[in-house]
This record gives sequence, structure tokens and C-alpha cells, in this order.
Amino acid sequence: MTQNDQRYMALALSLGRRGQGNCWPNPAVGCVLVREGRIVGRGWTQPGGRPHAERVALDQAGEAARGATAYVTLEPCAHHGQTPPCAEGLINAGVARVVVAIEDTDPRVAGLGFTMLRTAGIEVEVGVLGDEASRDLAGFLRRAETGRPWVTLKLASSFDGRIATASGHSQWITGPEARRMVHAMRASHDAVMVGGGTARADDPSLTVRDMGVTHQPVRVVMSRRLDLPMMSQLARTAKEVPLWLCHGADADVALIEAWEGIGAKLLPCATQGPQLDMSAVLQTLSAEGLTRVFCEGGGGVAASLLAADLVDELVGFTAGLSIGAEGLPAIGAQGLSRLEETNRFKLIEARPIGGDVLHRWERR
Amino acid sequence: MTQNDQRYMALALSLGRRGQGNCWPNPAVGCVLVREGRIVGRGWTQPGGRPHAERVALDQAGEAARGATAYVTLEPCAHHGQTPPCAEGLINAGVARVVVAIEDTDPRVAGLGFTMLRTAGIEVEVGVLGDEASRDLAGFLRRAETGRPWVTLKLASSFDGRIATASGHSQWITGPEARRMVHAMRASHDAVMVGGGTARADDPSLTVRDMGVTHQPVRVVMSRRLDLPMMSQLARTAKEVPLWLCHGADADVALIEAWEGIGAKLLPCATQGPQLDMSAVLQTLSAEGLTRVFCEGGGGVAASLLAADLVDELVGFTAGLSIGAEGLPAIGAQGLSRLEETNRFKLIEARPIGGDVLHRWERR
Repeated sequence: MTQNDQRYMALALSLGRRGQGNCWPNPAVGCVLVREGRIVGRGWTQPGGRPHAERVALDQAGEAARGATAYVTLEPCAHHGQTPPCAEGLINAGVARVVVAIEDTDPRVAGLGFTMLRTAGIEVEVGVLGDEASRDLAGFLRRAETGRPWVTLKLASSFDGRIATASGHSQWITGPEARRMVHAMRASHDAVMVGGGTARADDPSLTVRDMGVTHQPVRVVMSRRLDLPMMSQLARTAKEVPLWLCHGADADVALIEAWEGIGAKLLPCATQGPQLDMSAVLQTLSAEGLTRVFCEGGGGVAASLLAADLVDELVGFTAGLSIGAEGLPAIGAQGLSRLEETNRFKLIEARPIGGDVLHRWERR
Repeated sequence: MTQNDQRYMALALSLGRRGQGNCWPNPAVGCVLVREGRIVGRGWTQPGGRPHAERVALDQAGEAARGATAYVTLEPCAHHGQTPPCAEGLINAGVARVVVAIEDTDPRVAGLGFTMLRTAGIEVEVGVLGDEASRDLAGFLRRAETGRPWVTLKLASSFDGRIATASGHSQWITGPEARRMVHAMRASHDAVMVGGGTARADDPSLTVRDMGVTHQPVRVVMSRRLDLPMMSQLARTAKEVPLWLCHGADADVALIEAWEGIGAKLLPCATQGPQLDMSAVLQTLSAEGLTRVFCEGGGGVAASLLAADLVDELVGFTAGLSIGAEGLPAIGAQGLSRLEETNRFKLIEARPIGGDVLHRWERR
């Protein structure tokens, strides 16, 4: 592994991230083709999941791909799906060497891509910037391995962990820079998810705004009884931007039909006690193809996800004001008696953003 | 102002900070003497407040001070107190130029130091790194201007702003690096202060440990009724490390005498409703000479200080675990209905410390 290998793979990773949130259920892969120190092709998984990154880069390079090195963030696919396998594409283009960040764990690929390439006489190297790739592709890998998506839980709160005053006033706790970053984070996830309480209290649209993106993530609202207002931003926009409602089997049939009528997708999910079963909800979303879910609360949903150990990444925005103990808590009751009973997350990043603090944590 | 002036003043500031917490009621000043590009003397305010920084540096320089430039973080004193004025010392030593960060607002000095120096033919420059000096000397300046000390409020909490589980379990929310930094912060303040509830619940010693310091800050406990346990770390150590108890006028006389008997200093303070009046408590501490107070909670004290706008600096340590809404809040009830009703602090610093996040904020 040379320094150049790392440099080109870093470029491939950054290209791959362009597809995040926009190519589910496929992985957001990046590819760079380099011949004699010159980049001759760049590609990333296209909206909807195809063409794949390698195909895009090969088409861009044309004849220049002959004898080139291909940097790919994930093992090239080996199976004939809706498109011919990328391993075959690289072989046919005459690529001399393939550098890959991580192996694909999909049983239809899992090493077969490498075998195909090596059989054709192509030099294959695996593991360049593998940690970074594992993180970027965590949603795809998590879904393949466990049948549930990667879950990012975002909480924007006051210094003392409150998301609104007792009377419900919450605009705005964090500043414009932090709110803008939330929109960028939404755009890099397949779906934005909130609980019914937040949908009722805040009347959010949950769309990505002012980021120059044309693609919108799916909006997911969890509401066991579907007791959500029809006169709302979510309902009004259900025909333009996907709105999925996770509800209990006992939700009123008239409500189910009404929401279907305005364009929402209805997803019945198992319940646990009086609540929707979070694990079942995530399995349902995974079955629908989602790989990366961005959850924005409220406090009850946050507590349930944490208690069930279903949070992969925790993103905090902390503002420099205190609301006090009567304020609405960012995280609801967890039934904890000792600190050892809960998971401790690993700090990834902490830095100022505008006048607020951004802190990101990952499950250990 | 040259780049060298800034460099030497930065050194003087760093020397001055060595005295923080250890020379009240005097300011923690630093001084550097430079002749022909060589540092010939360094000094900072000594424990107990004297000798002053200039005196220490001049004694170190001896004859080398003649023709030197003196960098001093605060205007040299001009009045005969327990020691001769430093302005006189600089003149007698034959210093040629004096560079000062900020003017002293003490009416006994306030420009008189400069006048004395200039009358003696010494070149005086003021304002080099003045902002940094104003921050370092904020406690001294605040006390001189308003009759109350600088107040740093520290809160170490879970991701969701809790300081213990509902059953009171709190060891440890933050990691060893953050806890060590708390000890360093204690050492740089004149006093560590907590409410009676925290003293009862945690049985803290409030001393600085494992930092290699011999000096201990004053421990201040606020308890209107003096209902504090005699069998406690604080009581046990009251003879070795100063323990000051702020209490209401209606505290039991037998309790007052008992605490005095074991070595505590008793400070009666005005009350406001059922609580001690925070503003009165701080005025009392200021009258006793304290310039920098490090408050470590609990939630009720934190809320009272914030509500009365008495917090100058807010220091947060946030850990990567969530305790949930039944947990003990870091900040008690504030009676807030809209966000505009509370102060927004200005972010000074946000960074990882060990596995936790450190964030520091200042009153705007």
C-alpha cells in the first residue's frame, strides 16, 4: 500500500459519500481510475442505486481504462443482477490493478468479486482505508448483516439537555449554522424519522431545505394509533416527498385509508406494551430498503431506541443557554438505577459550530 | 506594539496565571524583564498576594534591570500599602520602558502608576494583549468594580444533562481526564462552592488532589439552616483546609457554635424566600476577599445563579451516556416560559477531553 493508494482511495471515499441517502438499498460506492499518475475516470453510485460507481468511472475513462488502477471503496459485485457485474466490467475494460477498501459481506459477492478479478490476471489489493470505508458504508453493511438500518440519533438541546420550555417554546435553541448542518445530515441519510409526539407538537416538514439538493429523504413517523393531524406540513406534502407511517395493527382502518388516500405509505409494525416495538419498526424499514435512518426524537423515541441499544451514532448539538428542570427533556425516562446499566458511547468528534457545540458519538 | 512585545506579554500572562487561586484578594499578575533581547527577570504574584510580580522579577534581575523593558500584565501599583509601590520599584531599578496589558481600575491605582512612571521619564505602552489580561484578571476586576467575585459554574453531566440516576448513583459519569481537569480548575480558583444538598448527597471533600499543589482553595458550602452532617469529609478536614459556611440568620445557634468549634468559618447571609440570596452570598464572599469562585452545583444552586444572572463562565463536561428523564437534573427549575427570557452564553471552547466533551461558555 503506497501513499498514492491512500490518496486515491480517499478521493474514491469522498466521491462515494455523494451517493449517501440517495441510492438505497444499494451501497454508496466511489471509484477512481488512475493511469500513469493521471485520473482518467471518477464515479459514484447514481441516484436509485445504478449505474454503479465502477460503471460510471469506466464509461468516463473509455479506452484510457486499459492498464489503469481502479480504486473502489467496496468489493466490485460479481453477480448478474439488473446490470452486468462490475468485476466483469473492470476485466473487459482491461484494468490492470484493483485496490479495494473493504470486502462486500453480501453472500452473493463476499470474495467472489476478488476471485473473478484475480482469475482474469488482475492484481487485487484489499484493505486500503478500510476503517473509513466501513464507517461510510455502515448502513449498507448493518442492513446486510442484521436486517436493520444504521440509526443516527440527533438531539439539539440546551446546555442542560432540554428541547423546549415547559410551555413548549423551542424556536430556536440552536443557531442557524447548527440547523443548517442538520439539513446536510438529513440529506446524507435515506430517511428522517420522528415519533408521533414530535410530529404533533412541532408540525415539522422534515424536508431538506436550502442545501441545493433535489433529492429528499423519506420521512418516517411512528404513531401506534395514527393519531396525527391531517392538517399538517407532513400531510400537505405527502404526495411530493415520501411519507411513511409506522403504526400498530390496532390503528383505526379509517385513518389508515385516509393517510393512504393522501399519498402516505402505511407500514404496520409489532408493538411492545403500549408502544411500537422499535426493533420491529427498524426491521420493517430495513425490509423496505432503508440503510441509514436519521432519528430526530422526541424524548420518548430517543429513550426507547437507547434502552433497546438500537442507536449506532449519537449526534448532539448543545446550545449555550439553560432551560431548567421544568423544560422538556431531550431523552425520556429510561428506568435506569445505576450508570453501568446503560451503554457508554465513544466520542468521535467535538467542536464548535456557530455559537453551539457539535458532538458526535458512536456505539462502542 | 511589536511582535516581540506580544511574545513577552504572552509569557508574562502565563506566569501570572500561576498565581490564580493563590494570591487573593490581590490580582495574579505576571512580569517579565527583557534587556537586549534576553530575559533577565520573571515574576508572578506570590502566595498570599505578595511580593508582587514586578518585585520578584526585579529582584531576580538585579543590576540587569537597568535599561530593560518590563512587561507587566496589570498597571503597576502606585500606592504605599504593605509594600512600596511597584511603579517606584521599576523607577529605582532603572527600567527604561514599561509595557502593560491593562490599566488597574482600583481607584488607588487607576492611571497613577502610569503617571509615576512617565514622570520619571520611562516610556509606557498600554494595551498589549489587553483582552487576554482582562480575562485572566477578571476576578480581581469584577470584585473591584461590582463587589462580587467572578463565578465559574461547572456542570459534569450525561449526554442528556443529568448528574445522577433517580436513585442517586453518579460515580462516575465523566472519565478520569475530565475529573483531573476539574481538580486543575479548582486549583486556579480562590474557592470551590457547593449547595448544602450536594454536600449531603455526595459527602465531597472538595479538595484539589493529585495535582502536585500544596495550596487548597477555600471550600464554601451554602446551607440556610446549617443542616449538614458533622460526620462528613468536609467536617473532618475543616481544620486543615478552610471551610466557610454561608447560612441564614435563622440558623440554629448550637449548630453555628458546633461548626465554629471544629474550625469552620461561619458567614451569615441574607435570604430570599426560603433560600439564601445568591447575590448576598457572593457579596459576602467578595467582602472576605475572594475574587474567583468555582461553583460545582447542585442543580438548585446552578438554577438560582443562572436565574439571577450571576454566572460569568459556564463549564460543561458532557459524557457519552444517557441517564434519562428520571435522572437528577444538572440545573433545577428556572421558571422559564420562553427562550428569550434566559441569557445565551458565548462559546469559548469545545473539544474532546478523554472520552468526554469539554465546553466553556462566557456571559455575553
